[in-house]
Amino acid sequence: MPATVLKSNVAPAPAEQPIDARLILPFVKSVRMVFWTMVRVQTTVLRPHLKTEPAPSYDVSGIIGFSGDVVGSVVVSFQGAAARKLAARFAGSEMELNSPDFADAIGELANMVVGSAKKDLGVAAAHITLPSVIIGAGHVVRRLSDVPCIVIPVQTPVGDFCVEVNIRTVPPSLK
Amino acid sequence: MPATVLKSNVAPAPAEQPIDARLILPFVKSVRMVFWTMVRVQTTVLRPHLKTEPAPSYDVSGIIGFSGDVVGSVVVSFQGAAARKLAARFAGSEMELNSPDFADAIGELANMVVGSAKKDLGVAAAHITLPSVIIGAGHVVRRLSDVPCIVIPVQTPVGDFCVEVNIRTVPPSLK
Repeated sequence: MPATVLKSNVAPAPAEQPIDARLILPFVKSVRMVFWTMVRVQTTVLRPHLKTEPAPSYDVSGIIGFSGDVVGSVVVSFQGAAARKLAARFAGSEMELNSPDFADAIGELANMVVGSAKKDLGVAAAHITLPSVIIGAGHVVRRLSDVPCIVIPVQTPVGDFCVEVNIRTVPPSLK
Repeated sequence: MPATVLKSNVAPAPAEQPIDARLILPFVKSVRMVFWTMVRVQTTVLRPHLKTEPAPSYDVSGIIGFSGDVVGSVVVSFQGAAARKLAARFAGSEMELNSPDFADAIGELANMVVGSAKKDLGVAAAHITLPSVIIGAGHVVRRLSDVPCIVIPVQTPVGDFCVEVNIRTVPPSLK
């Protein structure tokens, strides 16, 4: 794996809505690993920040839900051109945006990022769903507002994407 | 609950992709119950059919993921005007489309439809996620293509919505 410029670690936590580094760093690590091993793309991870709603995601988003010891969702959202190029590299051929293979490729990339990060979250029983893939310029993904959403922006030579982490651990008393 | 016109039961199963009534009828029942008890809206459930991809969903979609004994996702997708009116009835006041309260109301309606149906699916250990709410005209929700997607169209006096059921049970041998 080539050297990846991690321009910052996790953003300082504002007092009112702390960013939990233990929930973020596994995704930073998995993004770097998955995109290099699967599509040979170098990723530059920028400073994570809290998402100020409402803000649109990019054009193509893979959504993975969590349940069990961790609840919420993680969205891997790509600029349209980046999604097309990454899906083509992943599948080995160019694909139309409306082909099932395109959605499968984007969903599988999102699934690998989240599945790999899940192992490092340090929780015993977190379940993740199959990915749903949203295609549509300017779509907005909203979640229940009691869970803060942290955006991890990622630059690559083929375009930008981001990982929107909107999860929290469930206290044992609520299980 | 007033009489609800269920124009048909479950669509006949084409030989190549059977529709499993046990996965569909719980959602028909929960739609009727949730929308009457929560927002006093009568629902007319039309004939379920297989979704032919790629087809856009409506303007506002609540997505709930499944994991465990059932995998996949269920999308409750609303015409924009219907979503606005139903959310207002649910919350007791009009809301802007981009307010957190609007997304929470739509997410909570989707959560109740799916949570209530889950109890009737006859599976021991199915987990559902918190809802993600997608806002954007013409957005397309794609799933992994090995899981068929069944659309349950619903008409109401305030506009149309549909429930897109894209789940399957996991055979014990794969657990």
